[in-house]
Amino acid sequence: MTVSLVGAGPGDPELITLRGLARVREAEVLVYDRLVASELVDEAPPGCARISREGLSQDDISALLVAHGRRGRSVVRLKGGDPFVFGRGGEEALALVRARVPFEIVPGVSSLASVPQAAGIPVTHRGVSQAVTAFAANDVETLDVAGLARVPGTLVAFMGGAVVERLAERLIEHGKPASTPAAVVSNGTLEEQVVVVAPLGAIGAAAREAPTPALVVVGEVVALREALVETAAHALAV
Amino acid sequence: MTVSLVGAGPGDPELITLRGLARVREAEVLVYDRLVASELVDEAPPGCARISREGLSQDDISALLVAHGRRGRSVVRLKGGDPFVFGRGGEEALALVRARVPFEIVPGVSSLASVPQAAGIPVTHRGVSQAVTAFAANDVETLDVAGLARVPGTLVAFMGGAVVERLAERLIEHGKPASTPAAVVSNGTLEEQVVVVAPLGAIGAAAREAPTPALVVVGEVVALREALVETAAHALAV
Repeated sequence: MTVSLVGAGPGDPELITLRGLARVREAEVLVYDRLVASELVDEAPPGCARISREGLSQDDISALLVAHGRRGRSVVRLKGGDPFVFGRGGEEALALVRARVPFEIVPGVSSLASVPQAAGIPVTHRGVSQAVTAFAANDVETLDVAGLARVPGTLVAFMGGAVVERLAERLIEHGKPASTPAAVVSNGTLEEQVVVVAPLGAIGAAAREAPTPALVVVGEVVALREALVETAAHALAV
Repeated sequence: MTVSLVGAGPGDPELITLRGLARVREAEVLVYDRLVASELVDEAPPGCARISREGLSQDDISALLVAHGRRGRSVVRLKGGDPFVFGRGGEEALALVRARVPFEIVPGVSSLASVPQAAGIPVTHRGVSQAVTAFAANDVETLDVAGLARVPGTLVAFMGGAVVERLAERLIEHGKPASTPAAVVSNGTLEEQVVVVAPLGAIGAAAREAPTPALVVVGEVVALREALVETAAHALAV
């Protein structure tokens, strides 16, 4: 395998997969996202070229993967979360297909469930939510909010931190009750994690100062947090 | 930590996280799902009590975790996929809360994106799908299909293999075009993986013989598979 598109997981470096870490340890070229833990970048062997993607366009990155892949090098593209869940892994994969460079995809733990989980929120829970919809919220004005407001179950908005106020407003306009429990989770799974919980109608104001990156969770499952984090506190006391 | 609810990932044993494997290796009691790879069960130390959950009710399992947890044992509950994505981890967590037994959750790679990915299907892809909805399809007659048929982006049906024909029928009745690309992925990420691809209107008949467990994927992203698996074939030939 010459190029591996590897998901690093949600932040905490122990949440990478065994295969993902094995690929990093064999890399000759490592191209990594800004949000990937430095501990993982440090796992690359001495002599490995470490390239931060910061300042590179998506086309630059694809070109880099193709160029090094063509030379038969072990290239690892280390991405936050999972490569195919709002990770643009598909675009890099298609560039490699077009260039006929062999590649593989190593999935990662997506933020989708692990970040709410780290805040004590199960995205699905029997009798409460049997569905979860994840979406990219950055283009909040062009979102099909009508469809999102009506779908059963939990909503998880990626890149939702900066637009939470407008997102909540639009969901409510389209019929989502303002009383629906909601949460904003910043720096999920990391020590700097911050969680803000409020009804959908108040979450925008409540989370105005929440750091980014942040995930927005909307749905009745947010109400389970109270019961679940009680233990976390209890566990700390033991 | 006495009880760890650990996600084992989608099937392939190398897709467990570092922390998940570390917990298994320290376990004094291991309670594992039928679909968890035997290689992972074998990682538990000599002397660890290994308990298959087969034949146990959800209440039995919760009681088992509480009983061993109360004795201060290192208990690992190893679950397929992720504990909080249709994994009923929330129920076990709440039982531990009620019993005041300290616990942690170690997320896993969910089948949600990794199984479609193993079949060459990115659940999100820029310009094609900016949302993904996962739902449990086993109770197909009670599903809010109207909401699911209207939500933008990709649909992923867990436990959808046995009901794919009826699910497709109901989605089409509620306005999902019969021409929407669809796939059924059986034994995803494993060597025995089988993929059936057809338009939504034909997937029921096409996948009638598909083995379970299977995931159903519906959406335009399925059409990307053709371009993406070309390389898999190419990679094998290299």
